[in-house]
Amino acid sequence: MPATVTLLTDYGLQDEYVGVCHGVIARIAPEARVIDLTHGVPRHAIRSGALALRRALPFTPPGVHVAVVDPGVGGPRRGIALRCVDRLLVGPDNGLLIPAAEHLGGVEEAVDLASSPWLLEPVSATFHGRDVFAPVAAAIAGGAAVAEAGDPLAIEELAALELPRPRRDGDALVAHALLVDVYGNVTLNVRHEDLPASGLAFGHSLEVTAPGRTVHATFTGTFADVPAGELLVYEDASRTLALAVNRGDAAAELQLEPDDEVRLTPR
Amino acid sequence: MPATVTLLTDYGLQDEYVGVCHGVIARIAPEARVIDLTHGVPRHAIRSGALALRRALPFTPPGVHVAVVDPGVGGPRRGIALRCVDRLLVGPDNGLLIPAAEHLGGVEEAVDLASSPWLLEPVSATFHGRDVFAPVAAAIAGGAAVAEAGDPLAIEELAALELPRPRRDGDALVAHALLVDVYGNVTLNVRHEDLPASGLAFGHSLEVTAPGRTVHATFTGTFADVPAGELLVYEDASRTLALAVNRGDAAAELQLEPDDEVRLTPR
Amino acid sequence: MPATVTLLTDYGLQDEYVGVCHGVIARIAPEARVIDLTHGVPRHAIRSGALALRRALPFTPPGVHVAVVDPGVGGPRRGIALRCVDRLLVGPDNGLLIPAAEHLGGVEEAVDLASSPWLLEPVSATFHGRDVFAPVAAAIAGGAAVAEAGDPLAIEELAALELPRPRRDGDALVAHALLVDVYGNVTLNVRHEDLPASGLAFGHSLEVTAPGRTVHATFTGTFADVPAGELLVYEDASRTLALAVNRGDAAAELQLEPDDEVRLTPR
Repeated sequence: MPATVTLLTDYGLQDEYVGVCHGVIARIAPEARVIDLTHGVPRHAIRSGALALRRALPFTPPGVHVAVVDPGVGGPRRGIALRCVDRLLVGPDNGLLIPAAEHLGGVEEAVDLASSPWLLEPVSATFHGRDVFAPVAAAIAGGAAVAEAGDPLAIEELAALELPRPRRDGDALVAHALLVDVYGNVTLNVRHEDLPASGLAFGHSLEVTAPGRTVHATFTGTFADVPAGELLVYEDASRTLALAVNRGDAAAELQLEPDDEVRLTPR
Repeated sequence: MPATVTLLTDYGLQDEYVGVCHGVIARIAPEARVIDLTHGVPRHAIRSGALALRRALPFTPPGVHVAVVDPGVGGPRRGIALRCVDRLLVGPDNGLLIPAAEHLGGVEEAVDLASSPWLLEPVSATFHGRDVFAPVAAAIAGGAAVAEAGDPLAIEELAALELPRPRRDGDALVAHALLVDVYGNVTLNVRHEDLPASGLAFGHSLEVTAPGRTVHATFTGTFADVPAGELLVYEDASRTLALAVNRGDAAAELQLEPDDEVRLTPR
Repeated sequence: MPATVTLLTDYGLQDEYVGVCHGVIARIAPEARVIDLTHGVPRHAIRSGALALRRALPFTPPGVHVAVVDPGVGGPRRGIALRCVDRLLVGPDNGLLIPAAEHLGGVEEAVDLASSPWLLEPVSATFHGRDVFAPVAAAIAGGAAVAEAGDPLAIEELAALELPRPRRDGDALVAHALLVDVYGNVTLNVRHEDLPASGLAFGHSLEVTAPGRTVHATFTGTFADVPAGELLVYEDASRTLALAVNRGDAAAELQLEPDDEVRLTPR
C-alpha cells in the first residue's frame, strides 16, 4: 500500500496554501495518498487543532500526520517530527501534536527539524507548511526514517499543551467549553471515563449554566431524543460530553465560546 | 480500475468530520478513489442535497455514492444502501437518494443497514457518516455485494421526497425556487421537458415576480446576453430553468429563498 | 507516474461544481492525480486567480493545470490550452493563465478550444469547467497532444493581463495592494527584484499610508519580529513584499482592498 499522509491546518481553503502543500508532497512522494483532515481550525487555535487531530487520527490509516497551527512560525519555536507506535507526527513544537501522540501510545522518538536535510530551501519565514513540514512528511512517507529527519530531541523538552480539567462543586460539575463545531455543538472537557465521578446520570434532567444564562437540558443519547429547539447533554461521537440543541445551535443559545466555564447541575 | 467512492454531505469543511470519513474509507478500501462532490449542502437541507446529488452523479464514474444530509440521525429513520443499474447509493432513508436513483434508472435493490456486518462499533448516535455509511460504502467499493450489506428492504417502503411541481395560471407559469448557489443563481423547478407547455419562449421578455417584487427579465442563453446588472432566465448546465443577474446576485435582487414561489409572465 | 491535473477556480465549495469537474476528469483519465490548488478565488477576480496560479505552480509536479475564473463564460472569449516548457495550461483566454505561463518559461504553443474534439456535448453556456476545460485537460493528461486539443492560435493573439507597477515618488515607494489572504495579509506589487530600487531597507522603520490612514511599520523578516498588534512589511513566501499585523489583520487595520494604492515612506 502507498503511504498515507494526512494534513490538518488553520490555513483555510480560500487561498492556495493547502494546494501548494499538496503539490510539494506530490513532487517528493508521488505515490503517497494524501487525506485532508480539515483546514478549518480557527486561526492560531492550537487547542482546537490538537483536539481535532486527537479525535481524527484513530480513524485514519497509520501514516505520516502533518498538523500546522502555528502562531509562532518564523520565531524560536522548533519544528518537530515525532514517532509513536505506528504513526509519525510532523508539525510545530507548541503542544499541537501532543494530545494525539498520547492517545496513540505516547512519543517514542522526537527530532528537531531545524537542520533537516529535507527542507525546501530557501525556507521562508512564514510558510513552514510548504518549506518544512510538507517536504519532511513526504520524505518520511517515501520511506526515510524519522531519525534522518533532523537532530535528536529529548522527549521531556517537548512543549506541552495545558487543558483545563473539570471539577465538582457541591452537586454541580464545573466543566469548560473546548470546541464549537459548525453546527454550534459544544464539546466539553468531560470524557467518558470522567462520567462515573461527575454526578450526572444518563436520562436525567439537569441545568446548564453558561456565563450569564441557565437553560434546562436532558442528558440523553441523541438529538432526536428531545423536541426541536431544546437543549441536550450527550456523549458525542468521540465519547466526550457535549451540548447540542436539536435542530438548533447550542453555542448561540448559550452564548458560549471556547474556554468558557459551563456548570452542570442535576435537578 | 480501482472503485470510485463519492461523498456529498452537509458536514461543512470547518471540522474534521469529512476527513474522518475519508480515513475510514482509506482503512477499509485503500485502493478506492474518493471524490468529494460537495460538503456545503445547507445543514439539514435534504432537498438541496438530493438535487445536487442528482445533478452531479451523471458526470462521475459509476461507483459507490455516499450522501449524508441527515436531521434524523440516531432516531428511527433507516440507513440504506440502494442498487441502481450501474451505481450504488448509500445514506439515510429520508428521500435524499431518491431523485438521483430515479435519474439513474431506478432502484433495483434496497437493503436496511441496521444490522449490517460492516458497522464501525460502537456506532455513535450522532455520526453515522463515520460509523455506518463510510464503512458500508468502503466494503462495497472493496468488492462486497449490496445484498451482504444488510437486510432486504421492499422498494415501496423507501421514504419519498416531495418536490413542488410548476403550474400554469393563465399566461403565467408559477414555479418554485429549488436551490440558490454560491453566486446567487436560483434554480427553478422547471426542467427542459417542461418548457413546451410553459408558455415561455426563448429570446422573449418576461416579468419575474417573487414574493414582494417584480423584475423584468429576458429568456436567453447565458449571462453575457444581457447587460451587467440585468436579470435573465436561462436553462442552466443541468437543463433546468434558472434565474441569474449578469455579474450580480439574482437571489439577493429578488430576495428569493428556496421554496419561494416565482411567477414568470410573458410580456 | 500518473499525470497530475491541478484545478484552481472561483467556484467555491458550497455547490457541487468542483466535485463535478473531478468526476469528469476521473471518467476520462482515471489514473490522473488531481490536486485542488484552491477554489476560493473571489468571484470573477481574474487577477487574484492569476497570481495564485503563478505562486502555486512552481511547487506542483509538472502536469496539466486548469484554471477557471471566467466572467465571460458563454460569450465571445476563447477557451484555450497553452504549452509551456514542461507544463500545460487550460482555461479561458482572459489573461488568467498568462502570469503563470510567463513564470514557467513562456508560452510555446497555443490552441483555441472552440472546436476541440473533446468537448462534453452539449456544451452548456454557463459551465465550461465541466464541459470544456475538465475534459480537455483530462484528455491531455491521458496522453493526447495539445495540438490535437483544438485549432492553432497565434501567441500574440492571447489576451494579456495588465498588472499595476510600483513607482518612486520622492522618498516614497507607491505600490498597490494585489491580494488579501484569509489572514488579512496584503500582497503588494513589489517583488524581490524590485527591492534594490525601492528605497526600502530591511530592518528599518517606515510609514505605510493607505487611502485615509497612516500606520508605523517595520521592514522585517516575520510576524514574531514585532509585538502582537503591530504592522510589519516583509517578503512573503513568494518573495513578494507584503503587509501583516502580528496576530492581527493588516487589511482590516489599514482598510485596504485589492487595487488600493499603498505608499511606503522610510523614516
